[in-house]
Formats: sequence, C-alpha cells, structure tokens
Amino acid sequence: MTRTSVTPVHPTDPGTATAAILEAVRTQAPLVQCLTNSVVTGFTANVLLALGASPAMVDIPVEADAFARIAGGVLINLGTPHAEQAQAMREAARAATTAGTPWVLDPVAIGALPVRTALAHELRSLRPAIIRGNASEIIALSGLGAGGRGTDSTASPEDALPAATLLASAGAVVAVSGPVDLITDGHRTVRVHSGDPLLTRITGGGCALGAVMAACAAVSTDTLAATVAATSLYTIAAERAAATCSGPGSFAVALLDELAALDADRITAHERLGEVR
Amino acid sequence: MTRTSVTPVHPTDPGTATAAILEAVRTQAPLVQCLTNSVVTGFTANVLLALGASPAMVDIPVEADAFARIAGGVLINLGTPHAEQAQAMREAARAATTAGTPWVLDPVAIGALPVRTALAHELRSLRPAIIRGNASEIIALSGLGAGGRGTDSTASPEDALPAATLLASAGAVVAVSGPVDLITDGHRTVRVHSGDPLLTRITGGGCALGAVMAACAAVSTDTLAATVAATSLYTIAAERAAATCSGPGSFAVALLDELAALDADRITAHERLGEVR
Amino acid sequence: MTRTSVTPVHPTDPGTATAAILEAVRTQAPLVQCLTNSVVTGFTANVLLALGASPAMVDIPVEADAFARIAGGVLINLGTPHAEQAQAMREAARAATTAGTPWVLDPVAIGALPVRTALAHELRSLRPAIIRGNASEIIALSGLGAGGRGTDSTASPEDALPAATLLASAGAVVAVSGPVDLITDGHRTVRVHSGDPLLTRITGGGCALGAVMAACAAVSTDTLAATVAATSLYTIAAERAAATCSGPGSFAVALLDELAALDADRITAHERLGEVR
Repeated sequence: MTRTSVTPVHPTDPGTATAAILEAVRTQAPLVQCLTNSVVTGFTANVLLALGASPAMVDIPVEADAFARIAGGVLINLGTPHAEQAQAMREAARAATTAGTPWVLDPVAIGALPVRTALAHELRSLRPAIIRGNASEIIALSGLGAGGRGTDSTASPEDALPAATLLASAGAVVAVSGPVDLITDGHRTVRVHSGDPLLTRITGGGCALGAVMAACAAVSTDTLAATVAATSLYTIAAERAAATCSGPGSFAVALLDELAALDADRITAHERLGEVR
Repeated sequence: MTRTSVTPVHPTDPGTATAAILEAVRTQAPLVQCLTNSVVTGFTANVLLALGASPAMVDIPVEADAFARIAGGVLINLGTPHAEQAQAMREAARAATTAGTPWVLDPVAIGALPVRTALAHELRSLRPAIIRGNASEIIALSGLGAGGRGTDSTASPEDALPAATLLASAGAVVAVSGPVDLITDGHRTVRVHSGDPLLTRITGGGCALGAVMAACAAVSTDTLAATVAATSLYTIAAERAAATCSGPGSFAVALLDELAALDADRITAHERLGEVR
Repeated sequence: MTRTSVTPVHPTDPGTATAAILEAVRTQAPLVQCLTNSVVTGFTANVLLALGASPAMVDIPVEADAFARIAGGVLINLGTPHAEQAQAMREAARAATTAGTPWVLDPVAIGALPVRTALAHELRSLRPAIIRGNASEIIALSGLGAGGRGTDSTASPEDALPAATLLASAGAVVAVSGPVDLITDGHRTVRVHSGDPLLTRITGGGCALGAVMAACAAVSTDTLAATVAATSLYTIAAERAAATCSGPGSFAVALLDELAALDADRITAHERLGEVR
C-alpha cells in the first residue's frame, strides 16, 4: 500500500485534499480489514466496494493478526463483540500498530454495557490512528462521563470536544458524528456540515463511515485529512442520495450508487464544503 | 419507557389502536434489543429504524442481561443459535421477565433441529409475552405435533389454532403467520388479512415482524393489541410495497420506505382492516 | 428431493439444460443449507429465495449434521470461519457426502490466511461435488501455487485451468469465476461469457453464486450441467440488472428482481449463451 502524501486540510480548500484521497482510494483499492458487528457487515462491505476499496472481513484469531500486517487499514467496531471476535480484535490492533497500519476504533454503545466498555479501554491503549463515535461514546471512552442510550447519543458533538481533545492527546484523530461532525487531532479541529438525518434511519450509517475512514487513512500520510475526507465523501454522497430517495430503504441503495459516482467535480462543487473550518 | 394504555382491540375498529401504537413508537423510539439470527440482523434493524424504534443488537452474555433490564422490548429469534448467543438468550429472557420487559420468542425452524428445539422449550418456560412463528413452528412448540420443512410451514395458521391456544394458556399472546395471520391470547382471536406473498420471497420477512412486535409491546399495556398492531403495520406496509415493486429485491427496499411513511390515515384507510375479527 | 435427469450440457444448446434446471428449482424449491460467511448471509438467502429455492442457514454443530442429511444441497463458504461454524462445516460436509447430498466448497481467500487454508484442504478431502472460487483460490487449493489478495484474484480463470483440472480429478466439478467463468469436470470444460463487472462491486457477488450452484445441483443428476446452469442463470440476471441500474446499490436490488423474473425465454434468448463451449 502506498500512502499518498496529500496536501493537509486547509480551511479554505478542503475539497482538494478530499478529491486527492478519493482518487488514491480508487487507484490503489486498499485492502480494508473489518472486524465489525454482525448487523452491518454486508452494508459496510458494500460501502467500501462502492467507494473503490477492497473489504476483507477477517475477524478470527490468528488470521486477524496475519491480515492486519498486510491490510492498508483496519476497522475495529465493538457493536457485537463476541468472545472469539474480541480476541481477534486484540490481535488485529496489536499487529496493526506494530506494522504501522492505521486502524480505526469505533466504541459502539460503550458506557452502560460492561464487556465492550472494558474492551474499548483496552483497545484504546493499543494506539488507534482514528477513534470515531457519537458524542456519548467519545465522552464515555475519554472517562469524562457516562455513555448514551444504546447507539443513540444523548449529547452533541460540541459537548464532546473536551473529551475528543483528551483522547487525541494520545496521538489519535478523533471524529465525533452528529448533525455537524467534529474532527480533531487535538490541535486542529474541523467541522463537516454535510450529511442527512436519514443516515440515522439506516443501520450502519455510522459504522460504515468508520470503514471509509480506514480506507482513506490507508492511502494518506495525513490522518486528519483522511478522516475529514472520509467524512466529507460519505456525507456528500448521503446528501445526494437523500435528494432523490423515497425513504430509508431507497436511501441506503442510493447512498451506494452515489458513493460509486462521486468524483472531484461533485466534491468541489459541494457548496457546504466551504463551511469546513 | 412509558407503556401507552391503548384502547383494546375492537372488532369493528382495530385501526384506532394500531394508529395509537404507531404514534407511541414514533414518539418514544423504544429501545428494542434483538438477539436474532445472523441472516436477518441488518434487515431487522432497518425495519425497526424505518418504523421509528431504536434497535440494539446486544446478544453477548453479561451484556444481554444488563440490556434486557433497560430495553423497552426484547426479541429472541432462534434462527442461528450459536452457543454464545444461546447463553445470552437465556440471560436476556430471565432478565426481561424479571424486569417486566415484554419479550418475543420466535422459535425458527424448530422440530427437526435438536439444539434450537431444546432451547425453545427452555425459553418458553421463561414466560415470553409474545410467541410468534409459522404454523409448523407453533405446533412443534406446543408439543401437539412435529415441525415443518426448514423455515417453511407445512400447515396453515388455522391448523395451528389449538396449539396457539394451548401456548397462550401460559399467559402469552401467540401469533401464527401465514396468508391470514392468526393472533390469540387464548380468549380473543384476531385474524389479520393484509400482507403479500412477497414477504415469503425475502429473508427476514417473518423474523423482522417479531422485532416490530417487541417495539409495539414496548409502548402498549395491551399485548394483544400490540401484536395485532405490529402485524397490521407490517403487512399494510408490505401490501403497499408490493403494489409498486418489480420483484423481491425492490420489494424489500420499498417495504422499508413504506414503513417509514405509514401514518394514521394510511392505516385506517386500509380496507382490509375491517376484516380483522 | 427429486434430481431431474437433464440433458447433458451441449456446446450448441446449453440453454435447454439451463432452462430445465431453473424450472426444476422453481417446482421443487430445494432446501439449500448454507454455512457461509457473516457478510453475505442475508444477500445469499435473498438470491436463493428470488430464484425459487429455500435457504436454511443451519450452521451450528449437531444441527449442521442433521440438516445436511435432509437438505437438497449444501454450501460451505469459508469467508469467516469462526471456530463453532468450522466445526459445523466439518459435520455438514461429512453428512452430506454420506447422504449423497451434493455440496459446494467455496475456499474464500485461502492462501495467505492459515486457518481457512487448513480447513479448506481438510474439507476438500471430504469430496465436495462442486468447488468454486476465483483463480487464485483454485490455484491455492490445488497446491499448484499461492493465494491472491484478500478476495481479489491475481490470476485469470485460464491461468487456473491446470489447477482446476487437478482438483476435478478427485471427482468434483470445478468452477473458476472471472470475466469469463470456466467450469470443468476434468474432461469437459465450459466457458460462460455472460456477467457484468458490477458483480465485483457488491459483496457476495461470488459467494451467492455458490449457493445457486448448490440449489441447481440439488435438482439435477448432471453436476456439470447444474454448475453451468447456475452460472448462466446468475450471470444472465446480472447482465439484465446492470442494463437498468444506476450503480452498485441499485444493481444488487435489480439482480434479485431479475433472478425472480428469469424464465426459459429470457435464458434461450440470451445471445451470449451460444458462446458457451
């Protein structure tokens, strides 16, 4: 996997870096290893394929270790952490960090649920490149508060900025999803305004974004730019899909079509990109 | 979770209770914990989200117990009962019954298959609020006969009425799916005539209905009314979807769109509702 | 399950055998047991249902053995071979071979990944009726070379002809997917030219074909003809779907609709069928 050196995110021109990263994903088709929950495996793989990446759901012990060394990026999502998969997650996280493979931690619904909460803290110590979640999850992972209600957040991304900054201080980029997504490396903070509420009406709306972040990080030397690019690509496609769909069922279908159809023109033409700041 | 006291199901006006229950689901967005089979997790979550409920696929030991105490309703579906999930099912059933959380048992394909058959009988003794299945499954669970052919029923809902009545005598509402769905609490029996054969041409057509029953039971004090409402909502959406689709693929997509678009007018306007008796 | 005696595949009239097998699938609705990866379970079941077969994802120990004895066909796909499922796969393979149930082995991504590679070799010795994979997987299974890159093949089907012929010598039909699918029983080799690159842009595009092969083998006495029929049916539906879709999301939906709509006229009218040779 070649990591493209991209222009860092710039307040007045985020579209250029995002378009460059999309092009690199399309050209390189990075292998993205997903250890994710049983609800969203199919949708997540389809999102990666639509974008141009190559998904590989390698999530059993021994193989998880081996594959994390050759993958371009890894997603570890705690939505349904069965014992065997949890062991594979530990292996994949260690191997990825050792190999320099960027990996994404998505601490789904931590807080009230004890198994995944303990696992999330253990995995966090293994140095993910990116941590993404909703505000409640990020606050819970930081130790600054409790969790939310299932996968629903009871806080806003701005509420989670102190927690995100704290988590970022260990070297991760932290992305907090919400009506306006907040992304920080502890020094620079970017807000992505695109998106559509329909993303909360389909399962995997957030989980698949974590996989897209792993795909973008696989091809970029700038993890903040990759995280912003992933969020922008995904939410621009979502906005376009929402404009033509008839409800959540057709939205999910159109989202895949729009991800496949994205190009530099559609990205830079997106008027809300100017609001990234 | 507030359980709405709804008008009990009335032969001449079932639509009113159903519309009230839909409104309560939309307003309260009940947390519905699903321990379901690996084939239909994504579709089930999407059905719940389309309707307005909040799915949570918490199906590992320890967490299953904890979550069943805070969920509004729980679905336990035996389609692929792996050992770890089976243990979580036992925990969730016990915790739900203890906490007064209504839970649904769906004994998928019991009869010939030994592991799930034994598990179904064990879970049945833990007092589900609702038992749903096809006629063969209900007959097998009651002990009055053997099972069917995979997930296909070899009997009709009317054939299963004695079995359903027997199962209901332990305090459950029993729903038997088929061309005409039969729902009984042992005293009152309701038949729901809406639906479309395309529901049998997509995977999860029946399984997701179990989740909708858990969502409706979460917001209603009348479990029979909730079960009838779930069946009516789901099958009315199915009829509307079937009217516009081009086959099973587009039917599943349209079903989600129609569930999201359902409202009181569409429910009460549905002429077949008058046939509920 | 009645296995229809079909006219053997003939270079100049492959459509007749394929249409007869489709008709038999529709009439008999064979039970197809799938032990497959967690990413594609739902899509695979929907493909089988759209075609007219009856899927049953029975993949736990004890039940896998019991069900393989009554199923019409069995699919064993190694995409995510968790320990419990791997044990069930061994049971199902042994029981199927003992009972004379045709079963399909899909050695997903073997080569670099140690657990599934060892399992694939073990299962191969249990005499699958059909082995299907991409060129890299077939070459790796034959022992004539290493594997590919995740689920991506780094070789062409023609490159894999020696490997396929070697594997076929143990009594299996071997199908190698690619731009032109190659199918051989070691004596006769058939190439199927239909299909569309969009099949590689959705998850399960190849995995579900393995299930269709199990469905066709369940109703045919000629395993080569069944394998060719499955490939033709699936890729003809894919071509038709690709002609009307807007991207990979709508392609997957349309593929299900087209599978359900296939009939003898659409099969025999397909001009590329003449290229099967």
